Amino acid sequence: MKKLRMGILGLGRLGYIHASNIAYKIPNATLTAACSLVPEELERAKAELGVTDVYSDYRQMLAQADIDAVAIITPSGDHCWQIEAALDAGKHVFCEKPLGTTVDQCRLAEAAVERHPELTFMLGFMRRYDKSYAYAKQKIDAGAIGTPYLVKATGVDPEGLIQNAIRISGGSGGIFLDLGIHDMDLMRWYLGSEAVEVHALGATFRHPEFRAAGDDETGAAMYRFANGAVGMMHIGRIGPHGYHVETEIVGTEGIIRISAVPEKNLAQLYNAGGVCTECVQSFQERFADAYLAEVKQFVECVLEGKKPGVTVYDGTASTKMGFATMESWRTGRIVKIE
Amino acid sequence: MKKLRMGILGLGRLGYIHASNIAYKIPNATLTAACSLVPEELERAKAELGVTDVYSDYRQMLAQADIDAVAIITPSGDHCWQIEAALDAGKHVFCEKPLGTTVDQCRLAEAAVERHPELTFMLGFMRRYDKSYAYAKQKIDAGAIGTPYLVKATGVDPEGLIQNAIRISGGSGGIFLDLGIHDMDLMRWYLGSEAVEVHALGATFRHPEFRAAGDDETGAAMYRFANGAVGMMHIGRIGPHGYHVETEIVGTEGIIRISAVPEKNLAQLYNAGGVCTECVQSFQERFADAYLAEVKQFVECVLEGKKPGVTVYDGTASTKMGFATMESWRTGRIVKIE
Amino acid sequence: MKKLRMGILGLGRLGYIHASNIAYKIPNATLTAACSLVPEELERAKAELGVTDVYSDYRQMLAQADIDAVAIITPSGDHCWQIEAALDAGKHVFCEKPLGTTVDQCRLAEAAVERHPELTFMLGFMRRYDKSYAYAKQKIDAGAIGTPYLVKATGVDPEGLIQNAIRISGGSGGIFLDLGIHDMDLMRWYLGSEAVEVHALGATFRHPEFRAAGDDETGAAMYRFANGAVGMMHIGRIGPHGYHVETEIVGTEGIIRISAVPEKNLAQLYNAGGVCTECVQSFQERFADAYLAEVKQFVECVLEGKKPGVTVYDGTASTKMGFATMESWRTGRIVKIE
Amino acid sequence: MKKLRMGILGLGRLGYIHASNIAYKIPNATLTAACSLVPEELERAKAELGVTDVYSDYRQMLAQADIDAVAIITPSGDHCWQIEAALDAGKHVFCEKPLGTTVDQCRLAEAAVERHPELTFMLGFMRRYDKSYAYAKQKIDAGAIGTPYLVKATGVDPEGLIQNAIRISGGSGGIFLDLGIHDMDLMRWYLGSEAVEVHALGATFRHPEFRAAGDDETGAAMYRFANGAVGMMHIGRIGPHGYHVETEIVGTEGIIRISAVPEKNLAQLYNAGGVCTECVQSFQERFADAYLAEVKQFVECVLEGKKPGVTVYDGTASTKMGFATMESWRTGRIVKIE
Repeated sequence: MKKLRMGILGLGRLGYIHASNIAYKIPNATLTAACSLVPEELERAKAELGVTDVYSDYRQMLAQADIDAVAIITPSGDHCWQIEAALDAGKHVFCEKPLGTTVDQCRLAEAAVERHPELTFMLGFMRRYDKSYAYAKQKIDAGAIGTPYLVKATGVDPEGLIQNAIRISGGSGGIFLDLGIHDMDLMRWYLGSEAVEVHALGATFRHPEFRAAGDDETGAAMYRFANGAVGMMHIGRIGPHGYHVETEIVGTEGIIRISAVPEKNLAQLYNAGGVCTECVQSFQERFADAYLAEVKQFVECVLEGKKPGVTVYDGTASTKMGFATMESWRTGRIVKIE
Repeated sequence: MKKLRMGILGLGRLGYIHASNIAYKIPNATLTAACSLVPEELERAKAELGVTDVYSDYRQMLAQADIDAVAIITPSGDHCWQIEAALDAGKHVFCEKPLGTTVDQCRLAEAAVERHPELTFMLGFMRRYDKSYAYAKQKIDAGAIGTPYLVKATGVDPEGLIQNAIRISGGSGGIFLDLGIHDMDLMRWYLGSEAVEVHALGATFRHPEFRAAGDDETGAAMYRFANGAVGMMHIGRIGPHGYHVETEIVGTEGIIRISAVPEKNLAQLYNAGGVCTECVQSFQERFADAYLAEVKQFVECVLEGKKPGVTVYDGTASTKMGFATMESWRTGRIVKIE
Repeated sequence: MKKLRMGILGLGRLGYIHASNIAYKIPNATLTAACSLVPEELERAKAELGVTDVYSDYRQMLAQADIDAVAIITPSGDHCWQIEAALDAGKHVFCEKPLGTTVDQCRLAEAAVERHPELTFMLGFMRRYDKSYAYAKQKIDAGAIGTPYLVKATGVDPEGLIQNAIRISGGSGGIFLDLGIHDMDLMRWYLGSEAVEVHALGATFRHPEFRAAGDDETGAAMYRFANGAVGMMHIGRIGPHGYHVETEIVGTEGIIRISAVPEKNLAQLYNAGGVCTECVQSFQERFADAYLAEVKQFVECVLEGKKPGVTVYDGTASTKMGFATMESWRTGRIVKIE
Repeated sequence: MKKLRMGILGLGRLGYIHASNIAYKIPNATLTAACSLVPEELERAKAELGVTDVYSDYRQMLAQADIDAVAIITPSGDHCWQIEAALDAGKHVFCEKPLGTTVDQCRLAEAAVERHPELTFMLGFMRRYDKSYAYAKQKIDAGAIGTPYLVKATGVDPEGLIQNAIRISGGSGGIFLDLGIHDMDLMRWYLGSEAVEVHALGATFRHPEFRAAGDDETGAAMYRFANGAVGMMHIGRIGPHGYHVETEIVGTEGIIRISAVPEKNLAQLYNAGGVCTECVQSFQERFADAYLAEVKQFVECVLEGKKPGVTVYDGTASTKMGFATMESWRTGRIVKIE
């Protein structure tokens, strides 16, 4: 069996998940190199993942490591130049979402991808690889709901993680870019159209720290798409019950709703409080399988010469939606996209 | 519009519900007389239900009151002679379940009904008139689940009412007759066959008072039916979440399950405990509409000369099942029915 | 028992429901008079509801009938003058929603109500009297979800009724006034604040007849409230599964969601299609109990001198929201309210 | 990192799943040898799983392969002697359920395990390692439902697999041993007690082939446990909606129900049929993660010297329950266990 030799760039919380998946859970991939600025992370990768070829300099890894492909799991603002560098070094690239933090950055990545049609590039919108979301897409493509014309998206982080959210609120790009980018991608994917207009509002009722940091605790946005479809989005940071990602795709002949109850598992507790289902508490818990599935898909695309489902242009389009949403939220005005 | 003039016998908790329904919620019926041994109950009926013709002697009501029909809502042991007296006095009869507390009593009622084919007799198994149970029956009759071959029945009273249950446990006929009679009727109804054998067990883990009174807190029984179908029943008195009546009818081509979550209403609360649905807390709350619907059906049968869906023989058959279940529980043996 | 003598104005589909409720299901009310322009409706009321005092002239009923109160269930554009006439004739008034079809009409009704503080006026937003919606309000008032800051409302009519919807689409006031008014009222009620801004979009993907009539098949709107809260609304006419009214109230410490599955009853069917719950198919089916409960509440308010929960000002406020929503939908601009 | 070198015995449908898990999904295990009587299976293991050391003779593998442990995934009747051979050869043993097909066989395995206290033996009741079942156990151990006193178990294979079920019905040991053994194990596990009595019934309404083969399509059983608790079980082969394993553990202070809706994923489809959830269609789909988790647990136990949660005695006890259940089903009598 041919195996894809992969290097990983970034070994933070999510980076380590990816590294571990590549090392142990993808039969036709091996983790042969790792790069991080944090020496402890490299030590951990050596000890637990068996990676011996480690780097603190990304360009050095690109130049020296015995790798076919790179997985980039770094702060969003660095993605685009790192993509470019990897492609120019002849490596296939898997990069976590978002593509970049400005549209200009995205254009650089697009150009690099276009310069290297011989290489595979895939952007990691992992929700598309979650079995429920993928099932919905298959059903929709098979005509189960007729023509989709409305997506209602909810993405709420748990109150339990609020201290971290407050800590990074000034620098995370704001709630719409930080949390909403997945929902924007899903709207585009399911509706098969691009957003042309957005109106966004924010609210902060529990933790004034967000407002103080120039951000908001809750975001709401309404989109008009080129084909006349509509998107409605509610994102927030104070989910009282846990991590809640719910998506409803409304079509002319049916509706698919995903995860109205963000259940932790299949158990229900009947007691004095009624009938209760405990909820998932983090994106890692909810999307563990999707993070694995997306990289499996990337590896398969490289090895079999297939095209990934998520392109560099999906990254640019969602980033443009995100910035327009931010601008609407900041100005209180309806903002045209493109 | 022709109106059925009704007298009520018994004005206890459930009797008052029926009296109030007849007085105010059934357009083609009027409550023209009431009988009770409790003077306060008669006063209340006068004041709140506008009944002026009241009695403390049942036979006197039958002889003097201007009524076409009687509703009997008295202790179970009195049902059969009261049915007989009413029929012999020329009155149509609606009687709450169970038909009687012995099979011999039931035979007396059967004979009276057979003596008066010109009169309508209906037994009040109200669950059959609940919209969910009636819907299930219609679906089944329409072939939605093929041939039904297994009924799994659950009937649990709420822990919140436990003090009353303990108080009456010695005299209520035991858990199988007291709670299980509805489930036995439903099994017969949905399976379209009669039980021929039963094996029953009991358990008491929370309130030893039940065992002390020669009863049990929880009952479990398994039935074999004449057509080869199977019934499984779990009844109990200590529902931690409320009043839980659930029934599953398993057929060769589908299954219908009723009330897996005995929801109080359509609201769900998402909070730190997860996603919770509060539950109904009493049979009155769960079956309020069914108590009304059954008497409406009775009135319609009388006025239009139709046959009620629940006959005197349903009463005898379920009573026989109940006694056989009791005997199995007491002896630990499999008991044949009939 | 004191009984409120009521006259009904309007005996159409909903009017007849109210008339029947008053005649037969509200112990302390009697239906003593009825007025309609349709002779057949009056004949039916005589035959089925036992109303003998009937009118084709509303002012004549007000002048001659032996009534304490009037229930107005007529086309929306006539509500306000009919309210005024009844109040000036010394009658208590229950009027179906909406209050009027213009804000100027609403002001007339407000003035009449203010002229007659001795009389009870109640507007029929029946959803508030549905047991699930009322339960949510009680829970919220008791602090179960902290401070509510977002309401997500869905109101979808069934595709099964589409021919009627198409037929009246030119004259119904448009989708936002026709369908959305209940959701607007609920947002105000649960958030305890008034909307100050709205942005609305429409879409038509299935029945171009709506667009041709200057209307839309689907409406989406996002509201900003005075206290900073947000409202999101999705309304439509082509529910593939039935009549779907769902409301989610998001608070700082919990969320209440009502009717995510608009179940017909408590039965679930397990078959080759999976596990399915059949849905309600009309507002009459979904809100039958609420239509009764609201008039019971009105009668109780009159007889006991209590203030109804829904005032004339609720009517004006929701009408203003409705017109602003329409204007935003028509112009594509964000519209300020008041 | 220390890795456990494992050999697999049996590469059928489930054997291949285990082999693949060991080869690719368990970081601290390697699949170093494989044994099968089917040459094609060995070829496939070489090609897809990279196993080079393959055998057609089990004792030869035990003697020659460089392995610390063996995973036995063979026909049930061979388990016990294969366990014994492996333990006597100094190998740790993981064996799929059931332990054996007779109690005598089980005693042999027990003796071998007792002879080798230095080696780890674990029996594969994978349901215990499913995240929902494990969660229920943790909750129960933490007191969430008080004292468990009733388990209601459902285990239904999908109608979609019926041809295979019919084909093997004569030789599979009968429905109770074939399908019910998991439910028996779960009852013992959750109740913390041993069954002392059973009464079982069967039914065949759809495929007379089962009855013709001396088996039944559906099984029902009721158990009395030593501590007074009760077990009720419904197993079957004709699930119209899919593969349905549901378990309800009823305690004095709460109830946990697992998988009332055996959902395929988190998507719900709203269409003309109502609101529907598609169901899982096979045990492989439902318990994929559990099959992995149980072997991970085995590996961890060996490497860290821990005791597995499922012992050889669990195997004997469930086998005894199974045989008693069969006997009751065959004779129509209540059967004592032990």
